[in-house]
Amino acid sequence: MTFGQTLKKIKSLEIQSSSNVTKQGLKALSQDIQKNKETHKKLLKTIKTKSKQLSQVRVTEPAIRNGLRYLAQDIKNAKTAEETRKTAVKSIRDYLTKMKKAEQKIAEIGSKRIKNNMTVMTHCHSRVVMSILKKAKKQGKKFKVICTETRPFYQGRTTAKELLSTGIPVTMIVDSAARSVMNDVDLVLFGADAITSDGFLINKIGTSQIALAAKEARTMTCTCCETYKFDPMTLSGDWEPIEQRDSKEIWEKSPKKLKILNPAFDATPPDLITFIICEEGVYNIREASQIMKNGR
Amino acid sequence: MTFGQTLKKIKSLEIQSSSNVTKQGLKALSQDIQKNKETHKKLLKTIKTKSKQLSQVRVTEPAIRNGLRYLAQDIKNAKTAEETRKTAVKSIRDYLTKMKKAEQKIAEIGSKRIKNNMTVMTHCHSRVVMSILKKAKKQGKKFKVICTETRPFYQGRTTAKELLSTGIPVTMIVDSAARSVMNDVDLVLFGADAITSDGFLINKIGTSQIALAAKEARTMTCTCCETYKFDPMTLSGDWEPIEQRDSKEIWEKSPKKLKILNPAFDATPPDLITFIICEEGVYNIREASQIMKNGR
Amino acid sequence: MTFGQTLKKIKSLEIQSSSNVTKQGLKALSQDIQKNKETHKKLLKTIKTKSKQLSQVRVTEPAIRNGLRYLAQDIKNAKTAEETRKTAVKSIRDYLTKMKKAEQKIAEIGSKRIKNNMTVMTHCHSRVVMSILKKAKKQGKKFKVICTETRPFYQGRTTAKELLSTGIPVTMIVDSAARSVMNDVDLVLFGADAITSDGFLINKIGTSQIALAAKEARTMTCTCCETYKFDPMTLSGDWEPIEQRDSKEIWEKSPKKLKILNPAFDATPPDLITFIICEEGVYNIREASQIMKNGR
Amino acid sequence: MTFGQTLKKIKSLEIQSSSNVTKQGLKALSQDIQKNKETHKKLLKTIKTKSKQLSQVRVTEPAIRNGLRYLAQDIKNAKTAEETRKTAVKSIRDYLTKMKKAEQKIAEIGSKRIKNNMTVMTHCHSRVVMSILKKAKKQGKKFKVICTETRPFYQGRTTAKELLSTGIPVTMIVDSAARSVMNDVDLVLFGADAITSDGFLINKIGTSQIALAAKEARTMTCTCCETYKFDPMTLSGDWEPIEQRDSKEIWEKSPKKLKILNPAFDATPPDLITFIICEEGVYNIREASQIMKNGR
Amino acid sequence: MTFGQTLKKIKSLEIQSSSNVTKQGLKALSQDIQKNKETHKKLLKTIKTKSKQLSQVRVTEPAIRNGLRYLAQDIKNAKTAEETRKTAVKSIRDYLTKMKKAEQKIAEIGSKRIKNNMTVMTHCHSRVVMSILKKAKKQGKKFKVICTETRPFYQGRTTAKELLSTGIPVTMIVDSAARSVMNDVDLVLFGADAITSDGFLINKIGTSQIALAAKEARTMTCTCCETYKFDPMTLSGDWEPIEQRDSKEIWEKSPKKLKILNPAFDATPPDLITFIICEEGVYNIREASQIMKNGR
Amino acid sequence: MTFGQTLKKIKSLEIQSSSNVTKQGLKALSQDIQKNKETHKKLLKTIKTKSKQLSQVRVTEPAIRNGLRYLAQDIKNAKTAEETRKTAVKSIRDYLTKMKKAEQKIAEIGSKRIKNNMTVMTHCHSRVVMSILKKAKKQGKKFKVICTETRPFYQGRTTAKELLSTGIPVTMIVDSAARSVMNDVDLVLFGADAITSDGFLINKIGTSQIALAAKEARTMTCTCCETYKFDPMTLSGDWEPIEQRDSKEIWEKSPKKLKILNPAFDATPPDLITFIICEEGVYNIREASQIMKNGR
Repeated sequence: MTFGQTLKKIKSLEIQSSSNVTKQGLKALSQDIQKNKETHKKLLKTIKTKSKQLSQVRVTEPAIRNGLRYLAQDIKNAKTAEETRKTAVKSIRDYLTKMKKAEQKIAEIGSKRIKNNMTVMTHCHSRVVMSILKKAKKQGKKFKVICTETRPFYQGRTTAKELLSTGIPVTMIVDSAARSVMNDVDLVLFGADAITSDGFLINKIGTSQIALAAKEARTMTCTCCETYKFDPMTLSGDWEPIEQRDSKEIWEKSPKKLKILNPAFDATPPDLITFIICEEGVYNIREASQIMKNGR
Repeated sequence: MTFGQTLKKIKSLEIQSSSNVTKQGLKALSQDIQKNKETHKKLLKTIKTKSKQLSQVRVTEPAIRNGLRYLAQDIKNAKTAEETRKTAVKSIRDYLTKMKKAEQKIAEIGSKRIKNNMTVMTHCHSRVVMSILKKAKKQGKKFKVICTETRPFYQGRTTAKELLSTGIPVTMIVDSAARSVMNDVDLVLFGADAITSDGFLINKIGTSQIALAAKEARTMTCTCCETYKFDPMTLSGDWEPIEQRDSKEIWEKSPKKLKILNPAFDATPPDLITFIICEEGVYNIREASQIMKNGR
Repeated sequence: MTFGQTLKKIKSLEIQSSSNVTKQGLKALSQDIQKNKETHKKLLKTIKTKSKQLSQVRVTEPAIRNGLRYLAQDIKNAKTAEETRKTAVKSIRDYLTKMKKAEQKIAEIGSKRIKNNMTVMTHCHSRVVMSILKKAKKQGKKFKVICTETRPFYQGRTTAKELLSTGIPVTMIVDSAARSVMNDVDLVLFGADAITSDGFLINKIGTSQIALAAKEARTMTCTCCETYKFDPMTLSGDWEPIEQRDSKEIWEKSPKKLKILNPAFDATPPDLITFIICEEGVYNIREASQIMKNGR
Repeated sequence: MTFGQTLKKIKSLEIQSSSNVTKQGLKALSQDIQKNKETHKKLLKTIKTKSKQLSQVRVTEPAIRNGLRYLAQDIKNAKTAEETRKTAVKSIRDYLTKMKKAEQKIAEIGSKRIKNNMTVMTHCHSRVVMSILKKAKKQGKKFKVICTETRPFYQGRTTAKELLSTGIPVTMIVDSAARSVMNDVDLVLFGADAITSDGFLINKIGTSQIALAAKEARTMTCTCCETYKFDPMTLSGDWEPIEQRDSKEIWEKSPKKLKILNPAFDATPPDLITFIICEEGVYNIREASQIMKNGR
Repeated sequence: MTFGQTLKKIKSLEIQSSSNVTKQGLKALSQDIQKNKETHKKLLKTIKTKSKQLSQVRVTEPAIRNGLRYLAQDIKNAKTAEETRKTAVKSIRDYLTKMKKAEQKIAEIGSKRIKNNMTVMTHCHSRVVMSILKKAKKQGKKFKVICTETRPFYQGRTTAKELLSTGIPVTMIVDSAARSVMNDVDLVLFGADAITSDGFLINKIGTSQIALAAKEARTMTCTCCETYKFDPMTLSGDWEPIEQRDSKEIWEKSPKKLKILNPAFDATPPDLITFIICEEGVYNIREASQIMKNGR
Repeated sequence: MTFGQTLKKIKSLEIQSSSNVTKQGLKALSQDIQKNKETHKKLLKTIKTKSKQLSQVRVTEPAIRNGLRYLAQDIKNAKTAEETRKTAVKSIRDYLTKMKKAEQKIAEIGSKRIKNNMTVMTHCHSRVVMSILKKAKKQGKKFKVICTETRPFYQGRTTAKELLSTGIPVTMIVDSAARSVMNDVDLVLFGADAITSDGFLINKIGTSQIALAAKEARTMTCTCCETYKFDPMTLSGDWEPIEQRDSKEIWEKSPKKLKILNPAFDATPPDLITFIICEEGVYNIREASQIMKNGR
């Protein structure tokens, strides 16, 4: 698959979830660089251009932006095209390894938070949340999961299938029914697309609404998030951009005059998140900027 | 259309919305009674049986139950089959007339609450809400509407089309995005399937979640509700029953082991409703039982 | 037992619970009047004096004050000592009959609110709450009860024994642990000593704290209360008086310099009560003054 | 003083406070009618015109509108100019008498709510609040008052002087400092310009902000309000209009380009008011429409 | 007193309060090690075994676990039995010295927060809270204390006696009355058994309920806590374990069928704690993990 | 202008705003030191005395106290009068340079938070807030500002004039009207006089009330604050002192018996502040003590 094909699949959500987008996007870039035959100067320009394309295909993804930022730093001192290629490939490989380890570490930490007889709610489909639940299941814990269907893409169906296949009992609801069942939920587990420096969780549209219903019912909420998803742009003042997607995803043959708003994410304030699990441990999400600083 | 056919259409949501179910259900019963040739005793039994069927086809509908309750009271003193038939037809006709007038009155009162430049949010598709918005539009007011799509039946699409056809600008969102846009909304207008004696609003699944997000943003919420939807059963202790619908409505070919919960309604506590409009005026919803008593 | 002995037992809490105090207090007065041989004028004075004593032995008891108020009204037109005695005895008998019927009616209404698999919390020992739970048990419902021990008098122990004897599973906690278990509770059932015209529940010390913890966890709370406990004094401006009891009840041999505050009741604001059950049905407690007016 | 002069003084706030505006406005109209020499037909037209002027000079005053509404009803059946004049004068006199009695009754009820050692907060200058505090002082109670200065008209200065002259200790603060001292306040007493059918208090700008700070500190709030200030227009759907006043009242020589918003009132939601005192007693403000119906 | 005897006294609460348990437990271990005559290998095993016993006698005590963790680290490099004994004794001595200094430092910092005329509430009996109040008293400040009795062990009585003996005026209430008096309280001072990495306070059962009532009344709450009570286990995912104690502590001769829940502690969320005082200063408790990291 | 004259102008608010007070106060001290001819010993005493005067003229100003603290540290090792003078002048110059740069950095960061079509609310007159808004305006953004008049000194008028002169549309309201317009505000920008170690914002009286109204309406609030305004005194236990000003500022010719409270500032709890902008970036204000530690 070429770099261009990968970009397209990311755009169309064939490749989706913050982790997959980062992994496959960076891998495609790495392969592209490896095969590159240009002069040093041209190569640098190509890397810059493709990095920009990659960082803009889904705007709400600091994980990929952070990887590209490290890449840019690493190749700065390389003096030849070859050295640049090698350094770039290594930089990306290292970053992806770090990501993988972070995910494993979060699964380990998070699985301790799952107790017997718990009811856990999930929204959308998050790799780290899946890892936590599967690990807890392997540890022999008995718990059940309520998952939302997650309009407009029904990622909840993927979540349901994946969990059922490991033997975890799953109940599905429409997104609108989250408050209706909330009194029976012990813990809501969210993934994350980004964490801002002031402690907001940027995640799949609907997250903040569920978190609000959880707060109302004194149900604990948790976001599971590798530190490379903390966004340093927000520290220097930028708002985390919220990707607006095509209206067809919601209603294919909608009336012409109808305006459709299709934001892919929303922002959940820190007061609605009980704790955050990242590879360094369990924290209060208001410490976001301190955790961010511990990163590279 | 026979009485049986009407029952089926109500069950399958071909006939839907609290008002339509009541109107068409009672009309079908009235025609059925009119054509009935049984003896007085048998007729009474038939009416009782069919009333029961009608009141159970959708369990969360006090409007139809109230109509049938009045019917039962009215025919109590009729002495012959013919007198019974006549009384029954009149009782139903009167009730439907009262319903219609109530709806018109609510449209009149509610339209005053729509101000120029307002942004109004709707959920699902409610006849009285439609009447209010159309009346306000006719009065020359300029406002816009944000409507949810309303899973699983997408009644929001009907709402959108109907409003667009009258020239009101409409924006559609997925149900999960209600909190995301809530800061721009001035008033949320809900219909109602039932009002309980302690002031809870029973309405389309998702209502309570939107009302919660509105409260968080100090956005006003209103339910528009004819008094014949106030449920006297709740005064004497019963919980308003919540209809559970088929899982296929959510996911047609879902995995076997997956449990799907599909409640048609939820219960919104009085603290999340700013005011209620019924045909007698604008009230605080905590006065529910007093308003209920003003009825027949 | 003489009238004086009854007063003492009420004071010492040997006779306790709002209902028992009212019943036994009024009965004692009735017997006292029946045996009275004084002239008409003296009799009236005696009734007045003893009524005052009775209404002041426990200051937070509108039930007894309402009974005495009706008594005073009823005997106003009696012209002889004998007529007065007869009228008084009848007035008290009627009031006590009304009370009993109210309690039965509340048990009937309230039992419908108990659903299978519910966890119900109780505080102190309330006759109407007992009636509801026993009736629900008789109806074959399966539920469990968490009861507080209720310092300083441990009335929770009476509650526990009484419920266990009917086969209802009971768990006891210290008063301080109510918030700890609240997420597992579906409904908190309180009795009532008084309801004020603006909708406050006056009940055993600790009630408002439990109600607050319930609100925080979106757990429903209910007060079960005959309308003769609604206090008309509050309508005309008075604060409901809160009885302060002896410090010895808390610490028998406390240090001399230690001040001990021992209020028998506290005031729970209407926002912390989901609904009220009285003999006329299920209401929102903010309708208190309207319900009060429906009384005599 | 002619009717026209009275109108002017009301407009300029020389005559101010909801009660004074109603009293002096209606008195001026009464005198005007008394002196009127027109034919019956013309007289009716004059009354209509002047009634309209009077009801529009300050738009947020249902007290005057209710008086004029009763007047219109009363003179409907009068058949001659003279009968009309007499009926009109009597109608106004009766209304003003009823108002006065209501104020006295509220003072009596409200004074019971003042306890020794209380700290009471006031905002603006309200006749009924003054009556309550003075009556409580006369009853020998010891309490102190914190009053806001109440920009832009400094009515708090009138409040302070009036209370000091009766010997009540008063502390003044700027409006912005209400939250700073709120933890020391036991009860906030507001007057009212209007009560809506859904339970909102319409009162001097700043009221809702103070009520919010009181709620945050669990400080009780009360509005003291004659039932003739309940606005039936709101029952039939109208929003209570909020008078916008001249920018010069805020900054006499403001820069040209500066826009100044000077609303005279704001709307406090029922959740921020602990109880309402009207001449019929102490109520929960959510019962507004029921109280309203008890009126004429 | 032997090591075994000390364990027993800790279990039975003869030795109680987080600080005392840690001090006496570690001292007993130190003496035990000092007297030990075993070979190096056996000694290490003995230390391990006894450390485990000590860390499990009361499960909710990170202070003792942290001391034992440091001990294990310190003796790792010792090469002989004698060196191990010396190192162990020194490690424990150092830790206890550090604890003592921390307590003194907290008293110094905390005493500044006590202002003249304050009313301070306490719950249970906490050494650091005692130190703060006594220091403030010595500084000549005038304030009073309201203490709960703290069921089931009445530690509030110890608190009351200890404070009265220093001349501080004390008022005692049952635990259930905390909300009733909360409007008169300026500051609630809690000790702590553990602080989790996400900012929860683990303290005597009832703490969270009082903190909730304080929040409702805008009363400040503070936990006073040495950093050695911050629990690093929670950072790596574990929930802080909550010790469940014997039912006899609540009701000695309870009915057989009665289940009694007797949790010794509860978890107060960070949103209910205004600030935390540890030996390093006054912090926001949401910074828990950062403070934790500053430790050894 | 002599040092004494500067002190007076600061006291009288001729020189006002936290930044100006610090700048002009320290400059005056620097000039005073430069001109000083005393012996080394006397000079040190003079600096100490004048530093104390300067730090007490407005008690709620950590910015000036921090500058003086650094000054004291810097001159500690100087051995002659001349060396002391030079070091002192340099220390103050450096501090003021750092302040200026911090302000510029905050303007840069903060301007990114202003989006097109936003409505921003301001209170009082803050230099950093002015810098942010002007920078955003220069960047071509279109937004409008609602500013309070800010009693008793009407600093809002300065704010309004300054913003209008740059072409930003401004609307002014009385302080009491903040809640009335809050639903139309997107972001409230506050300056800061001090930040405490537990995350409270100390700012112009009225700030906490506006922040509370913002929270109620889900409107974001932000404080813009250089790190030299974080107060280390609060870390070691002191409460931030709140300056009480002359009653004449509120009512020049007030009645003798009237007590007037005129606090210059109030304390806003961290839960009411969405984020803080300092020169190091956008943070959650609960991280206050960590940000404080990053300083010198």
